Amino acid sequence: MTTPLFNRMALIGVGLIGSSIARAAREQGVVRSIVATARSGATRARVAELGIADRVVDTNAAAVEGADLVILCIPVGQCGPVAEEIASRLAPGAIISDVGSVKASVVKDVAPHLPAGVHFVPAHPVAGTENSGPDAGFAELFINRWCILTPPDGTDPGATDKLATFWSALGANVETMSPEHHDLVLAITSHLPHLIAYTIVGTADELGRVTRSEVLKFSAGGFRDFTRIAASDPTMWRDVFLANRDAVLEMLGTFSEDLAKLTRAIRRGDGDTLFELFTRTRAIRRGIVSIGQDSDTPDFGRPHEKLPPLPRPYMADGE
Amino acid sequence: MTTPLFNRMALIGVGLIGSSIARAAREQGVVRSIVATARSGATRARVAELGIADRVVDTNAAAVEGADLVILCIPVGQCGPVAEEIASRLAPGAIISDVGSVKASVVKDVAPHLPAGVHFVPAHPVAGTENSGPDAGFAELFINRWCILTPPDGTDPGATDKLATFWSALGANVETMSPEHHDLVLAITSHLPHLIAYTIVGTADELGRVTRSEVLKFSAGGFRDFTRIAASDPTMWRDVFLANRDAVLEMLGTFSEDLAKLTRAIRRGDGDTLFELFTRTRAIRRGIVSIGQDSDTPDFGRPHEKLPPLPRPYMADGE
Repeated sequence: MTTPLFNRMALIGVGLIGSSIARAAREQGVVRSIVATARSGATRARVAELGIADRVVDTNAAAVEGADLVILCIPVGQCGPVAEEIASRLAPGAIISDVGSVKASVVKDVAPHLPAGVHFVPAHPVAGTENSGPDAGFAELFINRWCILTPPDGTDPGATDKLATFWSALGANVETMSPEHHDLVLAITSHLPHLIAYTIVGTADELGRVTRSEVLKFSAGGFRDFTRIAASDPTMWRDVFLANRDAVLEMLGTFSEDLAKLTRAIRRGDGDTLFELFTRTRAIRRGIVSIGQDSDTPDFGRPHEKLPPLPRPYMADGE
Repeated sequence: MTTPLFNRMALIGVGLIGSSIARAAREQGVVRSIVATARSGATRARVAELGIADRVVDTNAAAVEGADLVILCIPVGQCGPVAEEIASRLAPGAIISDVGSVKASVVKDVAPHLPAGVHFVPAHPVAGTENSGPDAGFAELFINRWCILTPPDGTDPGATDKLATFWSALGANVETMSPEHHDLVLAITSHLPHLIAYTIVGTADELGRVTRSEVLKFSAGGFRDFTRIAASDPTMWRDVFLANRDAVLEMLGTFSEDLAKLTRAIRRGDGDTLFELFTRTRAIRRGIVSIGQDSDTPDFGRPHEKLPPLPRPYMADGE
């Protein structure tokens, strides 16, 4: 007889990521039962309604009681306080993990609170959508996405392996690296893109000479792509930038230098510099598509309606 | 008896936009016949193979002979020279238009060459994908997108109306504005987003401390969205930045100031400023979706595979 990988999984926070984990873990049968909690009563009620957890409880302490896997699915700024709150209630031998987009700060904030005999294996599934909340999640979110584990020195390799097996079962590819390297990599592949998207959408919103209505109407020229990312959860992203400040500022510095170079090329009418860059960047897109990290369908596969039959007025009279 | 809106449409250039116009115009029956040409022999051969034009000819002069609608579907930097080349061959009363992403420079470059009795109505369909060439086009590209007409002062209103009717038949919403205002609006809704996307993709490609392989693997954190735009046609975009220099530099200036403000907020740990912006930008996304300029499907509707059945190793032995 075989049994699930974990007996009881506790989810603290049930937004896009937490609710996707619940759905995928249940579908794959890798946990015997799921206990969930959330800070807001409305979210807890909705999770109960959705039926994606076996039990919804009111407090973090109640959630972790007897759980052999505890995952914090909350903004990174809340991980420290919550770890402090639940530390004394964690079952011996339990694995505690998270899903935060920053890792060094989470390690620093969480580890000191944890008792001996509990295994702390920080994780970051690099997956998501622009939507938030328990209704936004879906079981397929992690398929073919990477989940990065950043176990601190001295972590039991068995615990890391078990969590890797869990994420593999949810469809993810698993990689292990140091928290510091994770934060540098994600600063360029995730945090800086978000910061820039937020900035340009804010810029467009405040122009005097171009109206908001014009910005919206003509957004298909490229701008609309940025608005998707800039619609991401504000609390989560505020915490990311505060927690990964140094790496983000480093990447921002490099980006700003590169932007200054391009600005100069435009001012001087230096078409060759522009053409050279624009040719080089095409290869990166091809690389991402070829390793399966994006679809090659044009325009992300956005839907297109069919052409309607023409009404009469489009026809001119016969010659 | 009714007849098509135009008798003979000549397309000079048959890339993504030109080939989409050919397909849509034929499907809608708004032109009786289509003559096409392209600078490269390979493109002309491919257009003939695809059968999307009634006739493919070798020269621009041959293409416009007897056409009552001529559309330049070429990079904006080539519009002036091509206009000069075809000017003497244009049929009296013909409408000549283009599809360039910049309008003031096209008006300046094209208008002086045109003979009296020919109607010049510059146009910009705000639609596209990251792909180029005659195979990339499709008839539905313009549906629910905006096509901006920028007729110079003194243009025959009948000609402008007829071109507007043409674009409506292809599914587009039509708006008229001055070339200068067009260039300012598109600088923020299209040109600046492209420039920023090209920059960040270039930045990511040149980092020493993060490998290209890491950038590709973890691109689902947001970066991959930028790579789509940064895969756009290099020649077209070089020309756009050279032709719309002043408006792009103005928008770049505003963007850079806003980015400096956010950088300062991150450096100072000012979460409130970040949170305030991140909340405001969500509304812009909702506005774009609500007027039908983007889909509300999460993650642009990117496809997700189903979870595979689990292999045995995911199960632990019974308790």
